[in-house]
Amino acid sequence: MVQEKGNGDNTYNEYCPHRVAIPPTKPFSKALKASLKETFFPDDPFRQFKNQSGLRRLVLGLQYFVPILEWAPRYTFSFFKADLIAGITIASLAVPQGISYANLANLPPIIGLYSSFVPPLVYAMLGSSRDLAVGTVAVGSLLIASMLGKEVSPTENPKLYLQLAMTATFFAGVFQALLGFLRLGFVVDFLSHATIVGFMSGAATVVCLQQLKGVLGLVHFTHETDLISVLHSIFSQLHQWRWESGVLGCCFVFFLMLTKYLSKRKKVFFWINALAPLTSVILGSVLVYLTHAEKHGVQVIGNLKKGLNPLSVGELAFGSAYMTLAIKTGIVVGIIGLAEGVAVGRSFAIFKNYHIDGNKEMIAFGMMNIAGSCTSCYLTAGPFSRSAVNFNAGCKTAVSNIVMATAVMITLLFLTPLFHYTPLVVLSAIIITAMLGLIDYESAIHLWKIDKVDFLVCMGAYLGVVFASVEIGLIIAVTISLLRVLLFVARPRTFVLGNIPNSMIYRSTDQYPTANNIPGVLILQIDAPIYFANSNYLRERISRWISEEEDRVKSSGETSLHYVILDLSSVGSIDTSGISMLEEAKKSADRKGLKLVLANPRSEVIKKLDKSKFIDAIGQEWIYLTVGEAVAACNFMLHTCKPNVSAQESNRQDENV
Amino acid sequence: MVQEKGNGDNTYNEYCPHRVAIPPTKPFSKALKASLKETFFPDDPFRQFKNQSGLRRLVLGLQYFVPILEWAPRYTFSFFKADLIAGITIASLAVPQGISYANLANLPPIIGLYSSFVPPLVYAMLGSSRDLAVGTVAVGSLLIASMLGKEVSPTENPKLYLQLAMTATFFAGVFQALLGFLRLGFVVDFLSHATIVGFMSGAATVVCLQQLKGVLGLVHFTHETDLISVLHSIFSQLHQWRWESGVLGCCFVFFLMLTKYLSKRKKVFFWINALAPLTSVILGSVLVYLTHAEKHGVQVIGNLKKGLNPLSVGELAFGSAYMTLAIKTGIVVGIIGLAEGVAVGRSFAIFKNYHIDGNKEMIAFGMMNIAGSCTSCYLTAGPFSRSAVNFNAGCKTAVSNIVMATAVMITLLFLTPLFHYTPLVVLSAIIITAMLGLIDYESAIHLWKIDKVDFLVCMGAYLGVVFASVEIGLIIAVTISLLRVLLFVARPRTFVLGNIPNSMIYRSTDQYPTANNIPGVLILQIDAPIYFANSNYLRERISRWISEEEDRVKSSGETSLHYVILDLSSVGSIDTSGISMLEEAKKSADRKGLKLVLANPRSEVIKKLDKSKFIDAIGQEWIYLTVGEAVAACNFMLHTCKPNVSAQESNRQDENV
Repeated sequence: MVQEKGNGDNTYNEYCPHRVAIPPTKPFSKALKASLKETFFPDDPFRQFKNQSGLRRLVLGLQYFVPILEWAPRYTFSFFKADLIAGITIASLAVPQGISYANLANLPPIIGLYSSFVPPLVYAMLGSSRDLAVGTVAVGSLLIASMLGKEVSPTENPKLYLQLAMTATFFAGVFQALLGFLRLGFVVDFLSHATIVGFMSGAATVVCLQQLKGVLGLVHFTHETDLISVLHSIFSQLHQWRWESGVLGCCFVFFLMLTKYLSKRKKVFFWINALAPLTSVILGSVLVYLTHAEKHGVQVIGNLKKGLNPLSVGELAFGSAYMTLAIKTGIVVGIIGLAEGVAVGRSFAIFKNYHIDGNKEMIAFGMMNIAGSCTSCYLTAGPFSRSAVNFNAGCKTAVSNIVMATAVMITLLFLTPLFHYTPLVVLSAIIITAMLGLIDYESAIHLWKIDKVDFLVCMGAYLGVVFASVEIGLIIAVTISLLRVLLFVARPRTFVLGNIPNSMIYRSTDQYPTANNIPGVLILQIDAPIYFANSNYLRERISRWISEEEDRVKSSGETSLHYVILDLSSVGSIDTSGISMLEEAKKSADRKGLKLVLANPRSEVIKKLDKSKFIDAIGQEWIYLTVGEAVAACNFMLHTCKPNVSAQESNRQDENV
Repeated sequence: MVQEKGNGDNTYNEYCPHRVAIPPTKPFSKALKASLKETFFPDDPFRQFKNQSGLRRLVLGLQYFVPILEWAPRYTFSFFKADLIAGITIASLAVPQGISYANLANLPPIIGLYSSFVPPLVYAMLGSSRDLAVGTVAVGSLLIASMLGKEVSPTENPKLYLQLAMTATFFAGVFQALLGFLRLGFVVDFLSHATIVGFMSGAATVVCLQQLKGVLGLVHFTHETDLISVLHSIFSQLHQWRWESGVLGCCFVFFLMLTKYLSKRKKVFFWINALAPLTSVILGSVLVYLTHAEKHGVQVIGNLKKGLNPLSVGELAFGSAYMTLAIKTGIVVGIIGLAEGVAVGRSFAIFKNYHIDGNKEMIAFGMMNIAGSCTSCYLTAGPFSRSAVNFNAGCKTAVSNIVMATAVMITLLFLTPLFHYTPLVVLSAIIITAMLGLIDYESAIHLWKIDKVDFLVCMGAYLGVVFASVEIGLIIAVTISLLRVLLFVARPRTFVLGNIPNSMIYRSTDQYPTANNIPGVLILQIDAPIYFANSNYLRERISRWISEEEDRVKSSGETSLHYVILDLSSVGSIDTSGISMLEEAKKSADRKGLKLVLANPRSEVIKKLDKSKFIDAIGQEWIYLTVGEAVAACNFMLHTCKPNVSAQESNRQDENV
């Protein structure tokens, strides 16, 4: 299998018992298939279908796309008890949160309730997470308000605005499902943890600022989301502030923060925290009803229509002039919803040690948004707060989502009049408390301590969101993240290796200051694939290492430099520019009377060096399996042959050029 | 200097004589400075200024920015003889090429001559290449014509068009000089060799197609550059073709191709080839003058104004409505000019073994274009054809550019009337011959053989340029190139390592099929930095490797799996997402009763693992300097301790979580 180019005329060959193997070239189609599979199907979903009968394959296929078919047969009554409790708990959170977030998105409150009914049912069928609680999300709501609100006013043209919100939800769903079907789930991976931390904290800050409208009882408010516009909007209408509303808001924020704080101190208080939002809504409504505060500057929700979600397929504004706006909004909120949802689902799955398939999750999210957009819902995803409550309440499967949907259905059918007197300021207080928990300054400090670039990404996202806009924050963070990856390749680290005392091991002298130089030999390690983006840099850097070493040797009077060993262990790949770089490095070493030696070229690299005849140029006998063997051979040549043999040899080669 | 966390309670420690060093943390400011220096000053330009007096520093600084000051004192008469001959040779090429390319850019022919006068003088002062011959370039001319021509017609509004061309040149110069001053020379590196090959071949194809206008004597012609528009334009006006012009064109193309072919066969014919364009121009002009062919469908240059470049600072259209167009064009032609010029300069420098400083070259290019735009020149760079002639004619320094400029000056002052009868078709023939040499199908075949992705990049650029537009071709190629780099990081290769027989060396079993598995131990190698972009993939891939290995072990009845060794030799860097991935991999290994062991974490990685306390989680004693030592320790544990010690230990750890 292994081609070995024997070369018998080298006396020092006995020092080199191991040969670098050149793996056989795979046919192009095979190599392409393997690399496409690794790119798009890294989880190998077809493995389970192997060696199965036709019917069994059909069942497995159905179970693959509709996970409920897989786990429903194993569902037990004890699971149901747990799911029932968890489902009722999250429903008590879902109702006020649904209304609050719809408010944040400038949509009618009832839309928020609708959105907690249909999408959770769809997700329960298709989703692979057992802990995710489906519902509307703050950041998505904010994004819809800020992106659509820029072009269509929700107060002046509420019908068009609602239609566009649903159309955007439809496109978000289509985009999410497409990503899943096309196995492009890794797109979400480009939103790193640092990006999400910064982005979420920024969005939470912005959302809190927006709530000042509700808390201060302001009627006119800016449509911008950045800090400066919002502060200007607030302080330019000092005389419009309503103290009644403000006091009520502060009280509820204090109450909600207190229950949250208590629940963290003692497990028993968990239920108090979980039920606090509903309690606040009830308390607030009763208070307003008793004091008629709605006539004294405290805005209330007002009438909510009774009944289940009406169909809204006809409302999707496909022919509208704002079509591109809806598509753009859909893509942005779709990807943000996915990023949050998949990250939340994954965290809990790791905690409970089960597996979540990113691509399947995307299809589930997509389907639930498509279904939602046809039944008067707007964007739904997997909000962290609700999922955490679900998890803590002891849910076992996605049945808790079904229970929640049932509870919301009952609310829609019978209980909506109860929300007439619910003050908006209570909803603002609920949002503010939820959002303050998302401002994750501890993570930011952790990032600063461990990785400065990640901290930069995080702060870029945060400041971008707070001072410019949600999209700009995201673009800044993704750009910095990508630049970091590109910079890793464009400016790869190179190290001088030395011998670890009493061993044949060679390691960077930076990391191991006790490692010794080998007289007459310079060992360089390259730390990235050699690509077009770094080949010029590497050429310059290698020649600088060589001249620095020559200067050092001259001034210290050691054996002059004869061999340059390139350790290619960490070079995972090479392209044609990289091969040219090596060829030029060899030529320039030849001219200086130095011999270039390669150590441990990897399979990808040695294949290409072979095809491009560089192996013949450098000589198969100058390629070693380890740095240790390369050094041994160089030492052998230095001490047994004439010291300037390599210089002579290279000069001879030079004449042939 | 090295922190070593001793851990004395492990009986197998005697098997591990070498410890992984955690390098001391550098202060943030120092680390930042070092990494900025490596990014922006990889060539360490300040090295020569060290330990020098103030005056000497000033002189060195001046010499750094104005290289002529450095080499002029060493200039000899024998150098001058060589430069004189080379300079006159390239002047004989510069005059017809200058007129031709101006024609290609839809600019008055005289502008082409102006552009061979001032810019070469500037470059001779500032440039660091000894072989580059400065002049107008075909691709840049084509780009100006196609980008500006889309919005301003050169025939209907020639004055505005000329102003915009000069303004674009000005911005190209500013952009080039800025890139140089800001040490952003590496931007050009992102145009890989494959991109340049495809792009140049595509541009040459497009330029040849454009010349059919001149050869066929057509008056009306499309402003588009894509193949389909051009062919449609040509074949829709079959009856407009002028046979006189066509015959003349074919004859000259044949003559020029013949001299080129001959010069490749015998060195003596080099001069014939070098002088062929001027000969063609003289022959063509005499022929037209004698036969009065200008009255029979052969278009001629007509009157050329005598005299040197007029100043054109006032012509720069800074306030124009087309300002953004000029800036955009300037940036695109600037970067293309740089890419070609720097690549050409570098090739010859490598050949003659001297060094070219990319950033200095950019400043020189920028300055020459800024100076050019103020003296009625348009975009200049370092065309390959002219530089190759310069090199072959034996030039020694940039003085050959000064000689060429002087020759062009004499032409401008006294000889312009001689070009009155020069037929345009001869110019077309000169361009076609030059361009056919640029269609580098051999390189494309070479790329296909060695690197399929590079071939894809090359074809993307070629087809994009030929079928869409020059910019689109460039965008396609750069996008594919960048995707390749990102994909290398997003889908890193992972390998199972095995023991090379009769050694302590561990290598990929893919590359070395003779390498043996170690019973009870799975060794995985990761081939890229562990970043956000691949941490999810790696988590899944590692768990798949483990379950595949467990399946294999089960079916073959070998010792069951107890240890998973991650070889981090090729992991050059890690971010916080990567650390989370390792933490999760450890948790999931613990749950399966497996012990995770790390081998050879590099300095960047071990520092961050230390800061994030992952070392403490995994245990300092489970991190080894080499895979060999890790395997030895695992074997020791497997054979001397109870076989399930690791499972017990991990269960104990699990309870602590």
